[in-house]
Amino acid sequence: MSERPEVAVAGGATTRFGVRAATWSELVQEAGRRLFEAIPELRAEEVDSLFVGAAEPERFAFQSHVAPLAAELLGLKPRRILQRTELACASGQSAIRSAYAAIAAGLSDVAVALGVEKMNLPSMAEANTSMACVMDRPWDGAHGATAPPFFAMVAQRHMREFGTTEEALAAVSEKNHRFANSNPDAQFHAKSFSREKLRGLPLVAPPLRLGDCSSMTDGAAAVLVVRGDLARKYTSNPAWIRGTGQYSDWHNLANAGDLTDWVGLRQAGREAFRSAGIGPADLDFAELHDCFSISEIVAGEALGFCPAGQGGAYALDGKSSLGGEIVVNPRGGLLGCGHPLGATGIAQAVEVYRQFAAEVPPERQVPDPEWALVHNLSGSANVHSLMVYQRGG
Amino acid sequence: MSERPEVAVAGGATTRFGVRAATWSELVQEAGRRLFEAIPELRAEEVDSLFVGAAEPERFAFQSHVAPLAAELLGLKPRRILQRTELACASGQSAIRSAYAAIAAGLSDVAVALGVEKMNLPSMAEANTSMACVMDRPWDGAHGATAPPFFAMVAQRHMREFGTTEEALAAVSEKNHRFANSNPDAQFHAKSFSREKLRGLPLVAPPLRLGDCSSMTDGAAAVLVVRGDLARKYTSNPAWIRGTGQYSDWHNLANAGDLTDWVGLRQAGREAFRSAGIGPADLDFAELHDCFSISEIVAGEALGFCPAGQGGAYALDGKSSLGGEIVVNPRGGLLGCGHPLGATGIAQAVEVYRQFAAEVPPERQVPDPEWALVHNLSGSANVHSLMVYQRGG
Repeated sequence: MSERPEVAVAGGATTRFGVRAATWSELVQEAGRRLFEAIPELRAEEVDSLFVGAAEPERFAFQSHVAPLAAELLGLKPRRILQRTELACASGQSAIRSAYAAIAAGLSDVAVALGVEKMNLPSMAEANTSMACVMDRPWDGAHGATAPPFFAMVAQRHMREFGTTEEALAAVSEKNHRFANSNPDAQFHAKSFSREKLRGLPLVAPPLRLGDCSSMTDGAAAVLVVRGDLARKYTSNPAWIRGTGQYSDWHNLANAGDLTDWVGLRQAGREAFRSAGIGPADLDFAELHDCFSISEIVAGEALGFCPAGQGGAYALDGKSSLGGEIVVNPRGGLLGCGHPLGATGIAQAVEVYRQFAAEVPPERQVPDPEWALVHNLSGSANVHSLMVYQRGG
Repeated sequence: MSERPEVAVAGGATTRFGVRAATWSELVQEAGRRLFEAIPELRAEEVDSLFVGAAEPERFAFQSHVAPLAAELLGLKPRRILQRTELACASGQSAIRSAYAAIAAGLSDVAVALGVEKMNLPSMAEANTSMACVMDRPWDGAHGATAPPFFAMVAQRHMREFGTTEEALAAVSEKNHRFANSNPDAQFHAKSFSREKLRGLPLVAPPLRLGDCSSMTDGAAAVLVVRGDLARKYTSNPAWIRGTGQYSDWHNLANAGDLTDWVGLRQAGREAFRSAGIGPADLDFAELHDCFSISEIVAGEALGFCPAGQGGAYALDGKSSLGGEIVVNPRGGLLGCGHPLGATGIAQAVEVYRQFAAEVPPERQVPDPEWALVHNLSGSANVHSLMVYQRGG
């Protein structure tokens, strides 16, 4: 019957994201090295727990039982909790939420949450086939219903219902690629990523073009998650975990709901804001899961950043940019940074920490932020996972 | 700053374990159906969270993102936490520990922890190859260092150091197969499983014979894990989670420690007993991870059931049987029940619940049990995970 402690992210680091000449294990080691460099006060023996977010190492790296492998690669001997969590594209955030739960439950004091994915393989056909098993494979994935066609359907429907334009999609992509230009770890640094140029790129699944789609990316990231009263030992800028929300709606595409009204995200959002005691208007910035440009548009609507159908205008009007209302994806998003499945949720938390600590370049620094939200969806936007962070006072 | 609630297992069920003409999804559905049959008071909409323990669905069933798939198959819409946990052979217990942490943290009230594995494939070569990636694959698994040869080395070393005999190995296997005969869901029901017969079975990896090795098994299991004050709504016999312990030591075989002194298990045991406020002598029974007969012997020593080197005598003298000291594996163990990786830890918890509720046949009922311990190891016994349960008063 002890009291529940508060929990904070006390620092983090990512590897360079991209097509990397590095193995799964080398990515883990690189993230670990950077984590310990970023938090010089941290000693390996203080870490009592390790949570590894990884979506498909069994297929991408032919390696299972990855949590103890990662522990060994990081030089850790977890004595409280060691596990890997998998929730496809949201595996990284699942690892942080597990660390949060463990610390709040009194089962851990100092935890590392690490996310990693090695997606670029000698055979990209094998990699793409593996992505098909994120869906209900025999019913959906095996018949070609993978992420790009699903989100293309969402975009088509959104255009039809609300008059959303290809220009709006390009506005999201242009913004996120612009932010990525100031993120040295991003996969893409395209200096002249204009909307016109984006609209000339090849179609992947109409209306989504190459610039509307996140990439197959290699990368890893790690954060330190600690009991509140220990946070100041590691940082003067703890990012406090104030709320969380999640909802799982359906899995088989035949059971999918309204393509443009993400009910599960609305539900998760209510719980996240309720638990944090704030509303969307209190947010200074948000890391939304822009696996496709249309996702950022629909997610912003479901979270109440703007009314339904207005997500395109929100981007076109600059409301999701610096100087707008809620800055969305200052890190560069999945579009600009790439999307190494297990690493993405962790990298978003690293961005929250760095924004709060004013450690990012001015081109993407949100002025004096207090509240941030991180969103990950997985599969066909059938599961939504959220966390709300507050800057330490 | 709320208080930490207590947590209980309020019921559970398993499928029939074995070589099943059932898909991964059908196993999940069968476990779910039996869970709701076993707990008639449970309504699907009361379940706020789902934790899925699964080791390698990506390889065995070519399916990832399995948590929302399982939710849909069970008719659940988790609104608090949904995730899959993976820790190879301990994936099931990881799911229960995650549920425990989530409830103790106030992030869930009513959770299902489900474990599942479909291991019998049309190509058993493919299945065996997949098992090799539980080890450090490029360094160990790819060179043939999988579980049977590793545990054979443990057995050889134990024989050399302590004079342990093949008769002692057979005593463990005979006991567990005898218990399995009274478990209708066990894979094996060999009515005449004498030590002599066991010692005549083919060698798998000397000195381990067929009867010393757990099997490639299809199966699933599920438990209901609830906040303490809700437990009586579902059962009059809650199994209270009183303690937990885990330790991760090494991964690559080159870093392995003493083969017969499982330091990680001793460390995990200290933490489990400390957190529960008991010692090994307080235990009425234990579910130990007998993936091989030698594992039960070495695990009992590391947990303090008997002195180092005396695990063989402990079995030969009947101290691990009914009427002995600490009854070990009354469910039938992994040897008798089979070992569907993700399901095993959950099935062990189901046995604890049923033993406490006096719901098992007299041939395996431990008389009036109060304390039970569940042990899972994973990989090359490099990670050990423990839970301690107390019968509800």
